[in-house]
Amino acid sequence: MNGYRDLRVALLGCGSVGAQVARLILEHGEELAARAGAGLVLAGIAVRDIDAPRDVELPRELFTTDAERLVQGVDIVIELMGGIEPARTLILQALQGGADVVTANKALLAAHGPELEAAAEQVGAQLSYEAAVAAAIPILRPLRESLAGDQITRVMGIVNGSTNYILDRMDRFGDSAEDAARVASELGFLEADPTLDVEGYDAAQKATILASIAFHTEVPVDAVHREGITGITAEQIATAKNAGYVIKLLAIAERITSSDGVDGVSARVYPALIRRDHPLAAVYEGKNAVFVEAEAAGELMFYGAGAGGKETASAVLGDLVSAARRHVVGGPGIAGSLHAELPILPVGEVNTAYQIMLQVRDEPGVLAAIAGILADHGVSAASVEQSVAQGSEGEAALVIGTHISREAKLAATVEALRVADMVLSVTSVLRLEGGE
Amino acid sequence: MNGYRDLRVALLGCGSVGAQVARLILEHGEELAARAGAGLVLAGIAVRDIDAPRDVELPRELFTTDAERLVQGVDIVIELMGGIEPARTLILQALQGGADVVTANKALLAAHGPELEAAAEQVGAQLSYEAAVAAAIPILRPLRESLAGDQITRVMGIVNGSTNYILDRMDRFGDSAEDAARVASELGFLEADPTLDVEGYDAAQKATILASIAFHTEVPVDAVHREGITGITAEQIATAKNAGYVIKLLAIAERITSSDGVDGVSARVYPALIRRDHPLAAVYEGKNAVFVEAEAAGELMFYGAGAGGKETASAVLGDLVSAARRHVVGGPGIAGSLHAELPILPVGEVNTAYQIMLQVRDEPGVLAAIAGILADHGVSAASVEQSVAQGSEGEAALVIGTHISREAKLAATVEALRVADMVLSVTSVLRLEGGE
Repeated sequence: MNGYRDLRVALLGCGSVGAQVARLILEHGEELAARAGAGLVLAGIAVRDIDAPRDVELPRELFTTDAERLVQGVDIVIELMGGIEPARTLILQALQGGADVVTANKALLAAHGPELEAAAEQVGAQLSYEAAVAAAIPILRPLRESLAGDQITRVMGIVNGSTNYILDRMDRFGDSAEDAARVASELGFLEADPTLDVEGYDAAQKATILASIAFHTEVPVDAVHREGITGITAEQIATAKNAGYVIKLLAIAERITSSDGVDGVSARVYPALIRRDHPLAAVYEGKNAVFVEAEAAGELMFYGAGAGGKETASAVLGDLVSAARRHVVGGPGIAGSLHAELPILPVGEVNTAYQIMLQVRDEPGVLAAIAGILADHGVSAASVEQSVAQGSEGEAALVIGTHISREAKLAATVEALRVADMVLSVTSVLRLEGGE
Repeated sequence: MNGYRDLRVALLGCGSVGAQVARLILEHGEELAARAGAGLVLAGIAVRDIDAPRDVELPRELFTTDAERLVQGVDIVIELMGGIEPARTLILQALQGGADVVTANKALLAAHGPELEAAAEQVGAQLSYEAAVAAAIPILRPLRESLAGDQITRVMGIVNGSTNYILDRMDRFGDSAEDAARVASELGFLEADPTLDVEGYDAAQKATILASIAFHTEVPVDAVHREGITGITAEQIATAKNAGYVIKLLAIAERITSSDGVDGVSARVYPALIRRDHPLAAVYEGKNAVFVEAEAAGELMFYGAGAGGKETASAVLGDLVSAARRHVVGGPGIAGSLHAELPILPVGEVNTAYQIMLQVRDEPGVLAAIAGILADHGVSAASVEQSVAQGSEGEAALVIGTHISREAKLAATVEALRVADMVLSVTSVLRLEGGE
């Protein structure tokens, strides 16, 4: 007996995160009750196989295979099953039954976020999902609440730990892409099928969530421009390092104005150069960080663990305590508002700078010709340098850094360079983000 | 007309932060209303001198010199006057009248926080003060809400921009302490009386607030162990750099267990060494950052501007929107809970490591004698090296790095070294934080 009204909590899924959530609820019940203003009673844990091995020893009587029955009549549902179905249907049932829902399911949110938000708003329930982006890092609540009086202009995150681990090894230890991926895989940073990570799908799901919260606008995951890190070579890393940059896979959500004056949102994922003295450059190993720019607040960064059972459980519990408080206080939950309804603009409308690496004929007039191609497209060069890579006899390797320009112009410039006479090959094109 | 119920907001003070808050409320009224669920009407701005120059042009009819009258009958009071009185009395009057209060007044909170929290809790009003620590950086809300289900073990912040600017110039540009302070002063980073900054009083106020929120325990500002940066020399900076460290002024709030087994809280401010690859090491210029360690979440860091009118106004507006939502939803405000009531333990009970610089006689047996003194105190050396500083003939300069040990033992070791025969002088003692 703790003197508080008790709230019943259902847990769906008991993998590495779910097991930690269950443990923390059971072990820190009194402390959670003091913070929530209500006792939190774990009503049950729905799993597919009751006898499967777990990270944590938990009372067997809590387990059930009947998730649908479990979500009936509880106050709060924590969904940690992952995947689209049955998670989506169970969450909708829970919300319709008046329960608050906490989830870490980024794939589901990226695909059906607006539907779930609408269902929550309809009944005045609360849907929260701090753990879905950058695990332990409190980022969604600060974006939604702490910056509620400000205008966010850009969110730029390292939100996939696996790819950050790979790129960091290549940068700091000089690993080849293959070696770095092997080490990442051995350490459990990569899934059996690493495509979701290395092709940027996981980061794109998080970009969708970040963009919708930062800009109050529905951003379908298909509208996120996506490039992965599979093409990144040791030579690109070395060239970047030499020029004072580091390559990071960034998920970017940005307020932009198109060339014909339309205010909208850009959401994109790609590997990009950032300056070594940028706060995101010091995000090592599998860590995550989200860099936020706002009109009044200026530059902010949120840094921490982007994965891990315990770490993710911390964010889930924060949402759980918040949901419990809402039950105690009453009133509707904080709904994800999509009131701004800004258009999603294509990547061609983004302002960025390019670093272009070329193999060219080593003969007089080449630089002038290249400068001419840039000028023809309205792009100005910030720097042109001999690359660290060596070409064969009669060849030179160049690294061109452009000033900031509209992406469409930069892309057209690269196409013109590709077919230019004196250009033997374009060996690398990378964007520069976070300032020249 | 925006279709929302209107809430009346009183602003007390119109300095660089207040003027920006007024501007943002007036300029972004519609957007704020959409986020708050209520219209926000600026009822008035209380100032001492209506004709004083302001950073922003504001309607003259909003100004009044009668603060006491202004706070009557409003829904939300924003206190940005600074100082203890009349701010304290006005806030108490506002809370007793049922208004929510937003303040950035760290001196007042450090001195009278528990009194103000109690007054808010008594009437179910909300007192919030995100802007009081690290200005624009959302740190109090994440500590209080996002980590509500976790156990925070340590908070370690660079929370004073002026001193960070000075130390950063000494580190990155090799400035002397005097030159760095002069530049900081010229750029407006230092007050006319810089004592509050350089002696660590400002950081100690913030340590008080951070400790009380992280550990639900009242921490009087007098209980914060405080050392400033006035003694830090270019030689200490260079020696630190050489050994792979940077010196930062840290405000630390930590859960510790005393040598006789008492669980408690340590709150302290001092310049300390941190490893160059620690996230706090990359906090340059006047920026602030707060590094948080929690049982489940692991390591987190929150980074951004620690001063500035617009930047601080962003945090004030976040609290304003939150207070407005509470008015719309109803129910009591989130009170600052001091339920844990942990004892505050003296700095001697802290576990830390020392870097000690000594001038010693350059003769056989000196190292053995020094090692003996450490061993006598139960302190083990991690490293002993010749310093970058040169001594005179017959002298040697040594840098001793200890392993982590109880502060009281380390301090006793230094006292024993001071009076030892072969030690000519102890030239520097610095603690090492954030891991060896």
